[in-house]
Amino acid sequence: MSKVHNYSAGPCILPQEVLKKASESVINFNNLNLSLLEISHRSKDFVEVMAKAQSLVKELLNVPDGYSILFLQGGASLGFLKVPYNYMKVNGKAAYLNTGTWANNAQKEAKGFGDVIEVASSKDKNYNYIPKGYTIPSDADYFHITTNNTIFGTQLKEIPSCSIPLIADMSSDIFSKKIDVSQFDMIYAGAQKNMGPAGTILYIVKDSALGKTGRTIPTMLDLQTHIKKESMFNTPPVFSIYVSMLTLQWLKDNGGVEWIEKRNNQKADLLYNEIDANPLFEGTANVADRSNMNATFVLKNESLADEFNNMWQAANISGIKGHRDVGGYRASMYNALPLESVQVLVDVMKAFAVKFG
Amino acid sequence: MSKVHNYSAGPCILPQEVLKKASESVINFNNLNLSLLEISHRSKDFVEVMAKAQSLVKELLNVPDGYSILFLQGGASLGFLKVPYNYMKVNGKAAYLNTGTWANNAQKEAKGFGDVIEVASSKDKNYNYIPKGYTIPSDADYFHITTNNTIFGTQLKEIPSCSIPLIADMSSDIFSKKIDVSQFDMIYAGAQKNMGPAGTILYIVKDSALGKTGRTIPTMLDLQTHIKKESMFNTPPVFSIYVSMLTLQWLKDNGGVEWIEKRNNQKADLLYNEIDANPLFEGTANVADRSNMNATFVLKNESLADEFNNMWQAANISGIKGHRDVGGYRASMYNALPLESVQVLVDVMKAFAVKFG
Repeated sequence: MSKVHNYSAGPCILPQEVLKKASESVINFNNLNLSLLEISHRSKDFVEVMAKAQSLVKELLNVPDGYSILFLQGGASLGFLKVPYNYMKVNGKAAYLNTGTWANNAQKEAKGFGDVIEVASSKDKNYNYIPKGYTIPSDADYFHITTNNTIFGTQLKEIPSCSIPLIADMSSDIFSKKIDVSQFDMIYAGAQKNMGPAGTILYIVKDSALGKTGRTIPTMLDLQTHIKKESMFNTPPVFSIYVSMLTLQWLKDNGGVEWIEKRNNQKADLLYNEIDANPLFEGTANVADRSNMNATFVLKNESLADEFNNMWQAANISGIKGHRDVGGYRASMYNALPLESVQVLVDVMKAFAVKFG
Repeated sequence: MSKVHNYSAGPCILPQEVLKKASESVINFNNLNLSLLEISHRSKDFVEVMAKAQSLVKELLNVPDGYSILFLQGGASLGFLKVPYNYMKVNGKAAYLNTGTWANNAQKEAKGFGDVIEVASSKDKNYNYIPKGYTIPSDADYFHITTNNTIFGTQLKEIPSCSIPLIADMSSDIFSKKIDVSQFDMIYAGAQKNMGPAGTILYIVKDSALGKTGRTIPTMLDLQTHIKKESMFNTPPVFSIYVSMLTLQWLKDNGGVEWIEKRNNQKADLLYNEIDANPLFEGTANVADRSNMNATFVLKNESLADEFNNMWQAANISGIKGHRDVGGYRASMYNALPLESVQVLVDVMKAFAVKFG
């Protein structure tokens, strides 16, 4: 059975050894003769999983003291609502950078809570670049950014310097490279890219930044609820957190974020070099803003699409069809995708050029 | 490897064949050579899982036309917030029946949205009975009930007749017996009892009851958002929905809700008969209101606790320690618990009485 080269944009490829361990634990977890799925989340065995997942986040991202780590349900879309509830003052103001569909959704959700300032947007060019040179209002309660834009294949290469609290949706590039957590008041990230399967979301929260809005916050949307109960206010998504823990352990065992950043750079260089060198393709994102996670590209001659599609499918490549808002192709190169899979795609692109170039 | 008799209160026992299939799919799903965890939720294969899960709910509960089936994230605790957002009018009024911790939490969450009327409460006796003979205000926007109270071991044996929209949290007894969905405007239920693993929640929503409050509802809390996008507005909790689908298929294959209701009655009769006959134990819940899902009981002589604990542990029984709010023991007999496991517990109780009675 030959392995598929899995370029899915999320949920996406996970390490084989993680899948194997997860599969075993669905039958017999920790030699309890019980499935991971049928034990109490308050059992010693699961409490240890939760603690381990939290400590791995701290270790891998070098999280300073004074931050809490949460694993919750709801996805980043519910996060868009938690942000203004927890950080925008009554009659307050918030600043957003609009770099794509999800950044825009985050911003929309904050409206109705107070003034929402869009400091810059790349919507004019279908989000194919990251705006620069904008001014962040110094009287806003926070500035919200989306560090990687999966649909459009762009990524913030530098975190903007910012005198107000900075909040980042890192759903699609967390754990892919080194970050300085101390720059942020809050980071959130859905699991289903570099961290694990769908069904949980990570919050990294600076404790001292909470409780300052003057708002009444519904119980489940209040980050302090979950900090107080260590992510166990209600039944957590046990399996998704467990597999995330295994994936973070895999990352640590292999050399951590420094190791994966190097590997992710190699993969991205390999593919982008081919996109630029190959006469039949072109990238869609501004070169300086290209994402290391999601490479978006199109055929210069659309009429060759069937031929190219046949070739990559024959090579056992899966999931590179582009998002409908961009078209063409999107190769998502999340942490677990091996360099070998990128080489296979590049070889197909080369062979395609030889045949049709 | 002798199987554990798993009385966990939730997450809880699931059918062995479901666990086996789930375990296999974590490695290779639908012969795709890909894990269920690493495919897109928009792939044909997962879209079929979601559709199948929804159609099984309709079939098993005989859901009439005009209702939508949703599988979302967040748990019943987030449901407590969605209820007033979607059903309480601006300056409106809602009625709640307070039968336990979760019923009370649901009620608390509605405060601040309008008038919250507690029509009756059993808090005076530590929730050991279901109140009767109360009046439901006919001008309230809805009446909210919790059909089974896991902590206190009580269950509504009859759904109250009600002239206003009826909303039920059925987290811990859905799919355990026949219900008439047409009595309800909305039913919601966390998966982790009779339906599947933790990480998803089922909503059964009467379409015509929505959109009447005059409220602005945040995107993710608006049930219409999820109806329009068929539970795919954002990435769904893929694995939890898949295992729920398998569990519902198991229920159907074995004879559906009629079959399980009979079996659940047998299990409950067996255990309650022993509790009542055994000189060393007594039940904590009012006999007429006893739950078929969670049987709560205590030792008449607490000083024998160590002896009893040793005996059930030696019999490979797990998860019957009572909740701290009630003490003693709680035997949760969810759908997947076999009659044989109840017999093992009853045998231990009999042997205990012979030895210490």
